[in-house]
Amino acid sequence: MALTDATRPTDASMNTDLYELTMAQGLWENDKTEEQGCFTAFFREAPFGNSYAVMCGTAELGEFVENFRFTEEDIAYLSELEAPGGGLLFKSGFLRFLADFRPRVDIDAIPEGELVFAREPMVRVTGPMLDCQLLETALLNIIGFQTLVATKTARVVQAAQGRPVAEFGLRRAQGPDGGVAVARASYVAGCASTSNVLAGRRYGIPVSGTHAHSWVLSFPTELEAFRAFAKSSPKNCTLLVDTYDVREGVENAIAVAREMEASGERLSGIRIDSGDLAKLSAYARRRFDEEGLDYVKIVVSNDLDEHTISSLLGQGAPVDAFGVGTKLATCYDQPALGCVYKLSARRDSASEAWTPVMKFSEQPYKRTIPGVQQVRRYVDRTGSPVCDMIWDESSQPGDGTFGHTLVAVNDAALVTDVSGFSFRELLEPVVREGSAVAPRENIELARARCAASLASLDDAYKRFLYPQSYVVGMERGLAALRDGLVRERMAATSSVLPWKAK
Amino acid sequence: MALTDATRPTDASMNTDLYELTMAQGLWENDKTEEQGCFTAFFREAPFGNSYAVMCGTAELGEFVENFRFTEEDIAYLSELEAPGGGLLFKSGFLRFLADFRPRVDIDAIPEGELVFAREPMVRVTGPMLDCQLLETALLNIIGFQTLVATKTARVVQAAQGRPVAEFGLRRAQGPDGGVAVARASYVAGCASTSNVLAGRRYGIPVSGTHAHSWVLSFPTELEAFRAFAKSSPKNCTLLVDTYDVREGVENAIAVAREMEASGERLSGIRIDSGDLAKLSAYARRRFDEEGLDYVKIVVSNDLDEHTISSLLGQGAPVDAFGVGTKLATCYDQPALGCVYKLSARRDSASEAWTPVMKFSEQPYKRTIPGVQQVRRYVDRTGSPVCDMIWDESSQPGDGTFGHTLVAVNDAALVTDVSGFSFRELLEPVVREGSAVAPRENIELARARCAASLASLDDAYKRFLYPQSYVVGMERGLAALRDGLVRERMAATSSVLPWKAK
Repeated sequence: MALTDATRPTDASMNTDLYELTMAQGLWENDKTEEQGCFTAFFREAPFGNSYAVMCGTAELGEFVENFRFTEEDIAYLSELEAPGGGLLFKSGFLRFLADFRPRVDIDAIPEGELVFAREPMVRVTGPMLDCQLLETALLNIIGFQTLVATKTARVVQAAQGRPVAEFGLRRAQGPDGGVAVARASYVAGCASTSNVLAGRRYGIPVSGTHAHSWVLSFPTELEAFRAFAKSSPKNCTLLVDTYDVREGVENAIAVAREMEASGERLSGIRIDSGDLAKLSAYARRRFDEEGLDYVKIVVSNDLDEHTISSLLGQGAPVDAFGVGTKLATCYDQPALGCVYKLSARRDSASEAWTPVMKFSEQPYKRTIPGVQQVRRYVDRTGSPVCDMIWDESSQPGDGTFGHTLVAVNDAALVTDVSGFSFRELLEPVVREGSAVAPRENIELARARCAASLASLDDAYKRFLYPQSYVVGMERGLAALRDGLVRERMAATSSVLPWKAK
Repeated sequence: MALTDATRPTDASMNTDLYELTMAQGLWENDKTEEQGCFTAFFREAPFGNSYAVMCGTAELGEFVENFRFTEEDIAYLSELEAPGGGLLFKSGFLRFLADFRPRVDIDAIPEGELVFAREPMVRVTGPMLDCQLLETALLNIIGFQTLVATKTARVVQAAQGRPVAEFGLRRAQGPDGGVAVARASYVAGCASTSNVLAGRRYGIPVSGTHAHSWVLSFPTELEAFRAFAKSSPKNCTLLVDTYDVREGVENAIAVAREMEASGERLSGIRIDSGDLAKLSAYARRRFDEEGLDYVKIVVSNDLDEHTISSLLGQGAPVDAFGVGTKLATCYDQPALGCVYKLSARRDSASEAWTPVMKFSEQPYKRTIPGVQQVRRYVDRTGSPVCDMIWDESSQPGDGTFGHTLVAVNDAALVTDVSGFSFRELLEPVVREGSAVAPRENIELARARCAASLASLDDAYKRFLYPQSYVVGMERGLAALRDGLVRERMAATSSVLPWKAK
């Protein structure tokens, strides 16, 4: 269906924070262009009070890296930038380096549609530190927002209890590619369709939509407007009945439904976009049923999210489908995942050995997990996830002490033997030496993976209110390594207690 | 500075909701392709509890309309779409019409940087209803989000009390053009710079940035990392001191500042990105001052917004500049303006007379204002805005009864004679017959207009807590017209009281 999944023109390399470039220049100037690092992208807390997030954006990483280059125009722009203290910001030698730059990184990532939990590596980028650094901003752009939207969508779709949810938040997105990201991520996570035509063209996502209030206002009467729409779109006719008064609108829709029947067509549905949706949907259902029009579907919209949808269905509102816009497209109650990208290991250029590193902070939750991380998901006999273990590929001992022993992140007291469960590793190769390892995955595969992942997760983790916390831990050896780094740091610091400025 | 302000490749026409196209087909099929309408874009309530919004996005409308066309690829995609009830969604005749389509609209809009209040026309689009309709989604995309960000920025910049604010939210934006929109709107509304290199290249906005925690982690010690950065960027050297421990970081920065002095350079500043910013900034200031390094500036960041900035300055934190990211780029506390685009008048094709129309709703605040609206701003002798009046250009009587009499929106009791004030009209021509009336305005003009507009507004309207409500009204004749439409509708409706479904 999609005419093109092809590479689209991007400004991938310039879609970046200036400091990525000033740091790159610093590495270049310090002869560190070949020094290897490992960066880990993760979030610190799942959004919306959810226990999990739905990974999304992974499929875009291959093309992003392959298209990453600086054009002549980019270099010309950078060559004119002035430093705050005077003179040019970038050296000409560095700009020549940039002009030939192609990222030589390896990327491993959790596949789209898979569940991901707080503090786990969503994406791991290894390669020259400079290369890894230059990818940071755009990579966070891609996976952070799409994972957020996919997670919100999973909640909304769950609330709809099997009824189709149409995404139509494009007008509230941050521009074309924001809108496309919303449509894409929400389709992966279970929306039935999008209103976004560009997303439809690009990814083959089913598109849906009928008419707005302006259609009704552009005719002298609502009945004329409905008739004209039914004439024009008999096979795609959902009439918006709340431009003037829903009860009148329903009667006009009934009249048009009868006329359509007379010409061998069927009114598909009505949409109610304002007012008391529980009351109005019940009223409309009753009237259509009284008229023998039980096939006419009732679609509602108006700032819906998982909570309003749950409330409507809890009241028994006879709604057949939902349209969800603003609250989904902006992730209204939490519009940022807070996804970060941290150096977690660097490699000695002589010995090629990895040195795990971690960022400290006065705020303990901002301390990172060191290492070249992989994440292992343990499942029970039914395939339902039990817990995840983050482990360090670079420090795995060969002596068998690698334990299926998990030390829970943020809760040192919980140490569990998980050797009885089967498991799989979540990070999969996406990019090797700057090239995508495979063509872009079809979005339907991601959608199926998401549905299967959500189905396999115990309901306790999916409650909206106080969901069960999913256990994520570190492999015993990694936990000990991190403990050691923390102790070392504490010893070097005069006091860990809060201290005063004066 | 900017190498290009040129037209960038867009998917303007496909960045749309499907229903714009199904409605367009309906108008085409009902021989209404020439029927004229007037659409009005507005918001119902200012965001963030603010009294005003800062108009932004206007400068992009000309290019948007001029670039609006359907490519062969677009048409091919649309020609394959199937209707839910079977058969093809679009007729081949309509698709031929679309292939040749160029919008023939006129657009009048409030200039960028001007203040705009709830329910006022931000943008008015007149022309063939079909053309106006096809522009809706992308137009709301452009002005809605940028106006939201500009408004948020005005608050953040106000809180900073003259200290520079750097925008660096790109990684939390919804993709490249979301990030560019953020950078653009926040520069219009007073940010000093952006981290976004693409926005810098495209609009000539000053870019800023130095280094991240990863820079420090990529060296064996913090001191070595600082030295290396100072060596590479002596003219742009702000050191991030919180990777391990701020007090250590400050001492290392002091050491590097001394070394820089020895080689004739100066450390520009330090940045603190975590922990208690009030306490840590005071500590750092004291240490630098003790060392005779009073020129070293203190920059802070970490999920800042107008409230945290106010709190820091209220505590006397000696901060010289702020970096603001997530909370600004996502407009975290209200990520959508809720901007809508409503048909407010249609034109009889025979008489060319305008018929004002309005959308009703069970929810009175969703009722629209009819007419071909213009908005007039009344100012006192100092040029300070006093109130705004929405009036209908199509129904203005020639008999002198047009009153400088204002009937406040949502408060029929307030009727005021404003004839003593001077005034100006806010909507200005942007597009005529599908062509921009002028080249894109330089962003510096918008920025200056915004600064002047904000300076002219009385402080009472700019408080964060319970700001004074700014009076927006309808011209007496328009108010009477709208009243008449409401009465007519009420008479046609059986009951206006809440009614039950069963």
